[in-house]
Amino acid sequence: MNQNFELFAKRYSCRNFTGELPVKEKLEAIALAGVMSPSAMNKQPWLVNVITDKVLLDEMDAATMKLLSEMEDKSMYERLMNRGGTIFYNAPCMYLILKQPGTDLDCGIITENITLAATALGLAGVICGMANFAFDSEKIKGNDFQKRAGFVDGYEFGMTVLVGFPQEPGTAHEPDRAKIRFI
Amino acid sequence: MNQNFELFAKRYSCRNFTGELPVKEKLEAIALAGVMSPSAMNKQPWLVNVITDKVLLDEMDAATMKLLSEMEDKSMYERLMNRGGTIFYNAPCMYLILKQPGTDLDCGIITENITLAATALGLAGVICGMANFAFDSEKIKGNDFQKRAGFVDGYEFGMTVLVGFPQEPGTAHEPDRAKIRFI
Repeated sequence: MNQNFELFAKRYSCRNFTGELPVKEKLEAIALAGVMSPSAMNKQPWLVNVITDKVLLDEMDAATMKLLSEMEDKSMYERLMNRGGTIFYNAPCMYLILKQPGTDLDCGIITENITLAATALGLAGVICGMANFAFDSEKIKGNDFQKRAGFVDGYEFGMTVLVGFPQEPGTAHEPDRAKIRFI
Repeated sequence: MNQNFELFAKRYSCRNFTGELPVKEKLEAIALAGVMSPSAMNKQPWLVNVITDKVLLDEMDAATMKLLSEMEDKSMYERLMNRGGTIFYNAPCMYLILKQPGTDLDCGIITENITLAATALGLAGVICGMANFAFDSEKIKGNDFQKRAGFVDGYEFGMTVLVGFPQEPGTAHEPDRAKIRFI
């Protein structure tokens, strides 16, 4: 329809990043798009932590892969091994969205703004709930990871969006028009 | 930063529509942007009902206003009376998002895609959770409203986005940069 509209068709879930860090101007703009999101009663019940600490991301990734490899149900581990053996796909930047309890829908809204903003700026992204394994598990020093990732009292894990440059261009999933009904 | 990026800064919550119905091509495109949304494991746990039945929308609006006027806590009713005395702000079209239980975050994602898509196509929108009063209340024949709005088994109320032409241009809320932290 128009250039703005193409944004929705272009967005896809990138699962293979080059690791190169985008310029800070873009990383800031994406976070700004996040906090421009609407929310119930405009309460903005979120915080956006922009994490580019490669050591932290790599440690969380490795610890989570180890955790998954030791689980009885190996299906998640095997799915990730088939996708390259990482949970963060070599992304250089994580947008960690912290939320106040009971605000999942608002958290979904800001998650999507961040994801689309990355696409709008020529980057790629993927929404990654798996990061919560690292923060949540005592086995792999989850409390330490929380501290280093900037968790604060009153907020809990909401979602993460991984952002960077894609190794190769990806394509969006085919939209399912059967889910639309005119009343 | 670029034209795509301006979309996030342009979006605002419109609370005064002209009532004029946008062309069907645009209404379809907005729904399509909705079903292009990412979701956990790509399960797409939603349906998008595009409601342009003016009689239904008006009946739901009037019934809900009456319900609110009879509540002990009149604060919500008074807030709406100050905003024009309607819950749907004379919007000609409602995107009713139905969701599978337990998928609030996914519902937030598709809600935002629909909202931004309306903005991208030069229309205005507002996320409206109040519509659930009408569907949820036995007092005001909620079951009848659910049936006419196309509820189906296995799905429940997720959210609505009201879309149309604004009476006057609106402005976005000031983004709160204090909610962004670089780690």
